[in-house]
Amino acid sequence: MGNRKKTAARRKERLKIIPLGGLEQIGMNITAFEFGDSIIVVDCGLAFPEDDMFGIDLVIPDVTYLEENIEKVKGFFITHGHEDHIGALPYVLRRINVPVYGTRLTMGIIEHKLTEHAMMETTERHVVQFGDVIEAGNFTVEFIKTNHSIVDAAALAITSPVGTVVHTGDFKVDYTPVYGDAIDLQRFAELGRKGVLALMCDSTNAERPGYTASERTVGSTIDTLFQEHKDTRIIIATFASNVDRVQQIINSAYKYGRKVVVEGRSMVNIIHTATELGCLQVPENTLIDIDQLRNYPGNRTVIITTGSQGESMAALSRMAESIHRKISIGPEDTVIFSSHPIPGNEKAVTAVINKLLLKGADVIFQDVHVSGHPCQEEIKLIYTLVQPKYAIPVHGEYRHLIAQSKIARQLGYTDDNIFLLRSGNVLELDADSAEITGDVHVGNILVDGLGIGDVGNIVLRDRQHLAEDGIVLVTWAMADGGRQLAAGPEITSRGFVYIREAEELMNGADLVAQEALWDALDRGITDWTRLRNTVKDALSEYFWKKTQRRPMILPMILAVE
Amino acid sequence: MGNRKKTAARRKERLKIIPLGGLEQIGMNITAFEFGDSIIVVDCGLAFPEDDMFGIDLVIPDVTYLEENIEKVKGFFITHGHEDHIGALPYVLRRINVPVYGTRLTMGIIEHKLTEHAMMETTERHVVQFGDVIEAGNFTVEFIKTNHSIVDAAALAITSPVGTVVHTGDFKVDYTPVYGDAIDLQRFAELGRKGVLALMCDSTNAERPGYTASERTVGSTIDTLFQEHKDTRIIIATFASNVDRVQQIINSAYKYGRKVVVEGRSMVNIIHTATELGCLQVPENTLIDIDQLRNYPGNRTVIITTGSQGESMAALSRMAESIHRKISIGPEDTVIFSSHPIPGNEKAVTAVINKLLLKGADVIFQDVHVSGHPCQEEIKLIYTLVQPKYAIPVHGEYRHLIAQSKIARQLGYTDDNIFLLRSGNVLELDADSAEITGDVHVGNILVDGLGIGDVGNIVLRDRQHLAEDGIVLVTWAMADGGRQLAAGPEITSRGFVYIREAEELMNGADLVAQEALWDALDRGITDWTRLRNTVKDALSEYFWKKTQRRPMILPMILAVE
Repeated sequence: MGNRKKTAARRKERLKIIPLGGLEQIGMNITAFEFGDSIIVVDCGLAFPEDDMFGIDLVIPDVTYLEENIEKVKGFFITHGHEDHIGALPYVLRRINVPVYGTRLTMGIIEHKLTEHAMMETTERHVVQFGDVIEAGNFTVEFIKTNHSIVDAAALAITSPVGTVVHTGDFKVDYTPVYGDAIDLQRFAELGRKGVLALMCDSTNAERPGYTASERTVGSTIDTLFQEHKDTRIIIATFASNVDRVQQIINSAYKYGRKVVVEGRSMVNIIHTATELGCLQVPENTLIDIDQLRNYPGNRTVIITTGSQGESMAALSRMAESIHRKISIGPEDTVIFSSHPIPGNEKAVTAVINKLLLKGADVIFQDVHVSGHPCQEEIKLIYTLVQPKYAIPVHGEYRHLIAQSKIARQLGYTDDNIFLLRSGNVLELDADSAEITGDVHVGNILVDGLGIGDVGNIVLRDRQHLAEDGIVLVTWAMADGGRQLAAGPEITSRGFVYIREAEELMNGADLVAQEALWDALDRGITDWTRLRNTVKDALSEYFWKKTQRRPMILPMILAVE
Repeated sequence: MGNRKKTAARRKERLKIIPLGGLEQIGMNITAFEFGDSIIVVDCGLAFPEDDMFGIDLVIPDVTYLEENIEKVKGFFITHGHEDHIGALPYVLRRINVPVYGTRLTMGIIEHKLTEHAMMETTERHVVQFGDVIEAGNFTVEFIKTNHSIVDAAALAITSPVGTVVHTGDFKVDYTPVYGDAIDLQRFAELGRKGVLALMCDSTNAERPGYTASERTVGSTIDTLFQEHKDTRIIIATFASNVDRVQQIINSAYKYGRKVVVEGRSMVNIIHTATELGCLQVPENTLIDIDQLRNYPGNRTVIITTGSQGESMAALSRMAESIHRKISIGPEDTVIFSSHPIPGNEKAVTAVINKLLLKGADVIFQDVHVSGHPCQEEIKLIYTLVQPKYAIPVHGEYRHLIAQSKIARQLGYTDDNIFLLRSGNVLELDADSAEITGDVHVGNILVDGLGIGDVGNIVLRDRQHLAEDGIVLVTWAMADGGRQLAAGPEITSRGFVYIREAEELMNGADLVAQEALWDALDRGITDWTRLRNTVKDALSEYFWKKTQRRPMILPMILAVE
């Protein structure tokens, strides 16, 4: 009887999977797994601001749900060291101070961040080996070796009382990786054989047919380029975190007798961390300081740099703009982009390419990169090894999730077994059933300078308005308890028209404001809100008629004596 | 002797080619050809604003050089009806009122623009047939049939006393065009055989190997899609000006018994113009009004719409946002993007795709488009037919011009015969020599609402600053001839922080402003500029310390009594 009751209670308990971000965009990955009194969190990433988020530095997830259930939260389990998986940690850990688990390089990069935020002492950290199984409340979490565009990436096998969920993290299948082993396909198969409840698989490249090429193919390309450009200096831009790429560049540099300069803060940091941890092998006397460049002819050096995405303050962009203090570009340079532009960065990258070409450099920007994410055939491979009951495409915009769901359908999954979640959805599942049962609060928290969340929709809307048409200020002073005009109105503007060349327009505006104000006072209006609105409306109409623009109009009244 | 002198004088006279835009970007194409007392101008296009040109509607070329030589200018010779070749005409013609020459559809589209600007009566227009040769001062201009993503595109053979320049306009080689003939390759060959001084050839696709596919291949794809989606409504977005594309969609619609609705202002306009001119054949009873949609089942209709670039106010975007007044999207819709995103529009397009997918629509966005520009093998074909003495790559960013110059080098041209011009360069050439001899004034004129050129760098910089960090206003009143504080300082802000939630910060700012002001007055400072700067600096420092942001700070002083 007692046993039966317990079973019944258990029965009701289902695993909850709650993505708190990452399903409306590529970025801000964070997912809660909840069973009974236990919550574990997979990843804690940031997103970069959208184009209309003026002035915003970065975007982090709203973790109100975790705060409300703080006593349940057992830890953060991090799949790999990219910003969209770790970048929000320094902000979120301030509110949810629980242990963080990750593999060696992942933790190395996290620790660098925590140091910058002076949070090393207050954060409990655990470096995990592949194959380790961590116990965390009602869960166990196993870290499984995968391949990705960063070393030490892991998939997670998350086992709850109702079954195991495999979360791939970001991955690709690389049979010939540069560093370490190929993805542990045997373990995926083993788990699949034992039975997997759900697979949460990377969707980034789900629209692309075929397979993603091995990172080693880029190594061959780079080697060929070194061979073909023996007479020029080589400058090569890539993602700082792609340690394997950097390794292959260093290998070619060594082979062809070139010294290597590393340029750009994030590149220097990651190479330092990766070398310390043994993920990067740099032959002795290969790295030189940037100031030593002058001691070698250009064709004996290579510069590995940040800026492959055209980021305006990155080292390569500064070289292209002639504002880099130590490196200037000329006809004796070959610049290689070992990268693809991330969607949204195409124009910035092309602008840098044009500037480099204008300086006479040879610029190579095609076919010196491979993706770190699985194409369609790799996704099919993982599904076929793991054979999950439920398919939950993750990591991507909706179009990518849809693309993965089409793949799952080709493999025999039906709509009943495929779940296209939105951030905030609560998916409850066990061996018999799965359904979305509700939603928790989620959202974007905007970080601007030191401010975390103090820029919201109202401020953003104002910034958009100011950007579009500028602002017109109109000020006057009222005396006699607000009944008598004592000074003004004075008008000025910013971002609207060039005042010195728009004298007529602004003189007209003075008259309009004066007339509106006098007229209102004549009519006995003394309420300041009404006064302000009267002047504002009159100016707004005037400017629209004259310019067909709608500057923000801001009236301010001073009270004198 | 007299003859000799004349020859000597002639000798000195060379042809000048002066691009006034179009070589730093794809857009704003306009090139002056000058010989002696004659100038002709090829194209007069606009550019769309760059991302950092906040609030700007469009960009037109600075034609000061033409204004200064107005008595020489014989006419505008327009290659085709795309905005980047005709869009600045209504603005430029106000200053340079000379005849405009173009083929039938090109002129049809220009006349639509001139009508909107009420300039039909004041503009002399000439519709040209392919093969026509126009005399214009020292020049003759022949219009040669080409293919492009708009009907009636032309290349120009511009003959001056020192030789013929072939300007390809935008073109591709389409052996099986949808409407009209294939590009007149024989004429290119004939001109080449007679001797061509210079070739100015389209560089847009010069980085792409191979050939651009025929427009007809898209027709087959569309036909197949109609066959495969017999049960759903079809919504198909494409470029309004691609009349051939629209024709092929209408053909498939007719074949499969669907009625056609045309949606989006520019789409309606161009179809109207093209039909009137006979470039588009619409079977009777095929077009229906949007309000008639309800009278047909969805799978008997197709909607051809604007918005293929994710433009926020275009019809398809409004459908995706559920703010289109007459069409709502659902699972019974197949939406086809018959287009590629133009660089810079990728994120906007992907946002629309995601929204359509979220509504349950099937969305097809791959391989239903071909380019209108020549790939590498087509460029080689034209060079080989025309065999110009000088190669002048045009129409593209610098990277594209460089790519064409590499092709020319493969064909045996040397750096002496290849000219990579920048806008403003004056290239002087004759049969014996060619050199860049100087520069004329060129530039971007920004159009914002009714304002043409009233938004310059200062206003744009202010808009960028306002967008980034917002504005803080601080106002006070001075009495007694400016020596006595009469009211304030009062502070408010827009786009900086949400004032209601930043009370502490703003109260602190009040104190900082007061203190700075009192202190300055105590020190006997009465100069208002110094007073303003003192308060501004104090606030700037305070906000940077508190927020690490730099809002624009605008102090205003009122003088009372």
